[in-house]
Amino acid sequence: MAGLSVSPLAPAKQPQLPKIAGVRLAGAAIGLKKNGGRDLMLAELAEGTTVAGALTRSLCSSAPVDWCRHALKGGKVRAIVVNSGNSNAFTGKAGDLTVETTVKAAAALVGCADSEVFIASTGVIGQPLPPDSIAAALPGLVKKLKPTAWNDAADAIRTTDTFAKSVTRTAIIDGVKVTINGIAKGSGMIAPDMATMLAFFFTDAAVPAKVLQKIVDRAVKRSFNSITVDSDTSTSDTVLFAATGAAGNHTASHAGHKSLKDFRHTVEDAMVELAQLIVRDGEGASKFVSIHVKGAASGGAARRVGLAIANSPLVKTAIAGEDANWGRIVMAVGKAGEKADRDRLGISIGGVPITRHGQIVDGYDETPVAHHMTGPNIDIEVDLDIGKGKATVWTCDLTHGYIDINGSYRS
Amino acid sequence: MAGLSVSPLAPAKQPQLPKIAGVRLAGAAIGLKKNGGRDLMLAELAEGTTVAGALTRSLCSSAPVDWCRHALKGGKVRAIVVNSGNSNAFTGKAGDLTVETTVKAAAALVGCADSEVFIASTGVIGQPLPPDSIAAALPGLVKKLKPTAWNDAADAIRTTDTFAKSVTRTAIIDGVKVTINGIAKGSGMIAPDMATMLAFFFTDAAVPAKVLQKIVDRAVKRSFNSITVDSDTSTSDTVLFAATGAAGNHTASHAGHKSLKDFRHTVEDAMVELAQLIVRDGEGASKFVSIHVKGAASGGAARRVGLAIANSPLVKTAIAGEDANWGRIVMAVGKAGEKADRDRLGISIGGVPITRHGQIVDGYDETPVAHHMTGPNIDIEVDLDIGKGKATVWTCDLTHGYIDINGSYRS
Repeated sequence: MAGLSVSPLAPAKQPQLPKIAGVRLAGAAIGLKKNGGRDLMLAELAEGTTVAGALTRSLCSSAPVDWCRHALKGGKVRAIVVNSGNSNAFTGKAGDLTVETTVKAAAALVGCADSEVFIASTGVIGQPLPPDSIAAALPGLVKKLKPTAWNDAADAIRTTDTFAKSVTRTAIIDGVKVTINGIAKGSGMIAPDMATMLAFFFTDAAVPAKVLQKIVDRAVKRSFNSITVDSDTSTSDTVLFAATGAAGNHTASHAGHKSLKDFRHTVEDAMVELAQLIVRDGEGASKFVSIHVKGAASGGAARRVGLAIANSPLVKTAIAGEDANWGRIVMAVGKAGEKADRDRLGISIGGVPITRHGQIVDGYDETPVAHHMTGPNIDIEVDLDIGKGKATVWTCDLTHGYIDINGSYRS
Repeated sequence: MAGLSVSPLAPAKQPQLPKIAGVRLAGAAIGLKKNGGRDLMLAELAEGTTVAGALTRSLCSSAPVDWCRHALKGGKVRAIVVNSGNSNAFTGKAGDLTVETTVKAAAALVGCADSEVFIASTGVIGQPLPPDSIAAALPGLVKKLKPTAWNDAADAIRTTDTFAKSVTRTAIIDGVKVTINGIAKGSGMIAPDMATMLAFFFTDAAVPAKVLQKIVDRAVKRSFNSITVDSDTSTSDTVLFAATGAAGNHTASHAGHKSLKDFRHTVEDAMVELAQLIVRDGEGASKFVSIHVKGAASGGAARRVGLAIANSPLVKTAIAGEDANWGRIVMAVGKAGEKADRDRLGISIGGVPITRHGQIVDGYDETPVAHHMTGPNIDIEVDLDIGKGKATVWTCDLTHGYIDINGSYRS
């Protein structure tokens, strides 16, 4: 991993995240990463913090994911422990033991029930992670806990990421200002229909766990489940959202309550920002691609068509080659398996209509489209023209860099 | 396309195909390919020839595919016209007119009904193909028809293929020897669950169309639908199988008849050979990969798990990098969506067991596996250990060559 240069699509700078009452963090290097970088993060949450989340749908999910699935049922969180460098996936009963040992150590240190400790691990699959390797390091991390250590935390969860990813937003609930901070890591194995990669959000808003879960489910669908780098899905994908309640807002009893409108919108906005940052750090990415699908039979259909385009190696390599090869978009629409009518399909690139009603537009001039393809941001619009469903998905191109990185990951 | 060197996985030589009574062929250059190569093939079949086939499931299928879907209902064939250089896909009503014009011209020349003419086109999508462009060239091709022009025909249907693909086999039906010849082209947009790419088979066996269709359906599933290069599916995929009946064998009234056992087996064998040749010519391929899945809930489940592995960019790039990264195989099994139990999964590479019962094998030594990865033929075996379903799929690795070829296809 050493020596990867920062993605050309990275933002100019990382935001400074403010403190959130009830949240303290620490990041440290404990030797799991070969390069000696930070590889363990601990977040401590105040008593009464609620939690919601989304986890990989992989049928070979990791031991930490299995634990989180269980712990989420309680809806409460006091500690989140995340390591990089080893995913503790496909490690059999030994992997379960490592999770159990880590959970008990964290619970004892923080003073909470086991079910209030959440674990995530990312890195190589199938390498044993000794039971004590994380537990032994936790007392040291507890001493380092600070409300300001956001950058250390964001750094500690990175694997092949070329830049740390964080976001901050504020929202109003019933007249009270609340803050939402988030950190995430990518950047391979990013695929549709999953709670992709690792992302952790923290807010001082007071939101009951069940209400928070509904808000998170909807926002995850429109953010992390609407991006793809390479169609591959990790065994460890995890999104967690912790709400300390320190802001003291009135809590609503259902997710659709009007007092939560701004909060719902802001959660989605923050998740979309981190999701887009993950795409911008897609392995080898040189172009950030937005695919807008409209006129589909439903919103879900629109998203699946968008992801079929976004996952097509032929589309992705054409974009890498700055080739406005819209025929491959037709191909991808056709293979998506969703209702479509070849003779109604419209495609625009960079705002320039290329096809309409299933044929190339009269007098189509490729010049402005070819110019658009040379930029770092590519916009593709597909109109199926058969219904009202719409969705936007984001991806990156498929370049030599992807092959360089993934042909030698373990070396 | 010019300048692509022959795939390192190409066979040492192309077989010489024997004559088949009732079949004459011709190939010629008519200017559809920019490089001036052969781009039109005509096959003329004797009266009474039956036909079966399989066509792309793309919902944006090309005008020629739509025509073949209609013509297959008749079960009879006298002419097959195939051009490369332009797929006549996504060309609207103009594309339909080109097909109609071509069909009528071929029918008049051969002296048959329109529904006995089959058309296939391959190449760039969405470029208008003038109505007369093929029809005008057909009289010249008819004059060139010969029973021996197999190499010309196999050459004329190539696009990015680096070598022509053909196969010949003999089978016995009721004591009578019959011959099966086949030609095919790849090599991008090769994906599962479709009658992938273009392939044409010819036999002198007498087989009723409905019986032939059942034999073809089964063989296509285990051959062309069990390979993948890049998970992309063409709008033009077509397999046609023509049986002239000149061998004079007794015909069986159902596909399962014991007199057809050797023929069924041989058809599948010939299709697997051409399917493997397509993988061996996968764009940029440097490794030929066989993935054997067993212990699945069903044969279909085994095939879907195999294809999930075969389509994973992370698995394919690891193979290109000669990295025995079996963790990515676990990931791909997990994302396949088929029933699996992480704690039963066994994986072998090159015949060396790596995991068993969901954990790495005690004392696993990577040395022989690493050596296997350096060769051109990679064997992966996955045992889900939960049922009796099994399947084999074939793919190639994902290399810089794929990106080179597809980043500049139209240039």
